[in-house]
Amino acid sequence: MASIKVHGNFLSTAARRVFACLYEKELDFELVPVEFKTNDHKKEPYLSLNPFGQIPAFEDGDLKMFESRAITSYIAREYGDKGTQLIYTSGKEMAEMLVWMEVEAHQYDPVVAKLVMEQQVKPLMMGLPPDAAVVEENEAKLSKVLDVYEARLAQSKYLAGDSFTLADLHHLPATANLMNTQSWKLIESRPNVSAWIADITSRPAWSKVVLALKDYYQQQQP
Amino acid sequence: MASIKVHGNFLSTAARRVFACLYEKELDFELVPVEFKTNDHKKEPYLSLNPFGQIPAFEDGDLKMFESRAITSYIAREYGDKGTQLIYTSGKEMAEMLVWMEVEAHQYDPVVAKLVMEQQVKPLMMGLPPDAAVVEENEAKLSKVLDVYEARLAQSKYLAGDSFTLADLHHLPATANLMNTQSWKLIESRPNVSAWIADITSRPAWSKVVLALKDYYQQQQP
Repeated sequence: MASIKVHGNFLSTAARRVFACLYEKELDFELVPVEFKTNDHKKEPYLSLNPFGQIPAFEDGDLKMFESRAITSYIAREYGDKGTQLIYTSGKEMAEMLVWMEVEAHQYDPVVAKLVMEQQVKPLMMGLPPDAAVVEENEAKLSKVLDVYEARLAQSKYLAGDSFTLADLHHLPATANLMNTQSWKLIESRPNVSAWIADITSRPAWSKVVLALKDYYQQQQP
Repeated sequence: MASIKVHGNFLSTAARRVFACLYEKELDFELVPVEFKTNDHKKEPYLSLNPFGQIPAFEDGDLKMFESRAITSYIAREYGDKGTQLIYTSGKEMAEMLVWMEVEAHQYDPVVAKLVMEQQVKPLMMGLPPDAAVVEENEAKLSKVLDVYEARLAQSKYLAGDSFTLADLHHLPATANLMNTQSWKLIESRPNVSAWIADITSRPAWSKVVLALKDYYQQQQP
């Protein structure tokens, strides 16, 4: 029987995408700790798993992968009969799922990542002040992006249709990062987006990820 | 019978990704011109097809899509029995294909786009000089990325395995843009990458795209 390993940690936004997927699919896995603070991901043996030096990396038996969205797509397709069905495989709903997976990667995530960098990573982890101009610029961009989501989510409960798919799941970790910033008002002011976020963040699989991150922070306390 | 329409033009790097896919699949389509110079893509009726105002948009009967990589994935899956088989659907080869599709989108394309912006778009279309520091920084990044490709392409002819897939196809338009810049030396100095690029750019479907772009330029002459 194939054994699944994730190399990474719960602090990593990209790794949390993979953990959420594994919990949804009810697949057992082993976590092999790779830590940012000791720069494990920029050294061997990790670089043999991901030559780009980014967390996470993934193994399934003798198969090795990296890039979080590739890993979730592999899991959802290869383990189609386990846990939650996370993909549509034909027609209009597959088309919508593919579109919104790209929207997450190219329109949503880069803007949210900048807002989190300024308002969370810089002040809390690097002891640096946020750059107000960068926040303002990216809040304006995120507003426009979220207007498109608001219109889409008036038509269906989830981004691809009536069912939760990878298109929704991929948004979870970055969105959770945004929650403790002032930019969260942009989510709260849009009823369809708010209802969608409330729904997908309350899924049991995602709650497991949130708890594991809390445990991770506690273990880091001196 | 469903009719396929692409809204865009051959100047668009992203639209050329879709055209290459349609030619590989030997699917007929109608091109609905949407021009950058008249800003068609930032106005209605185009914004109803792609609310993010980016070229291309796509229709297949009453199905509407945007995001070029979503469109090619839809075409390859929905028309699996036509033309070139562009995807692996299970196991290790599917995993490799998914990984290298993400590598193209997140590691390769952003760096190549910056090099093309500085060395082609700015001098030739905007009358601005290239920023040498930006070129130097992104050539250093591209060198590291291409070292990973060089190692990968020592193991298999194409990125996912023995067959040409979307993982290779997605690289074509941005790579062709890079060809007329000084940064092309980074491709030429790596034998496996060079052989792979020579192979994929000589495919008949890609040659059709190159010819159509040449025609497009000629029609733009005053």
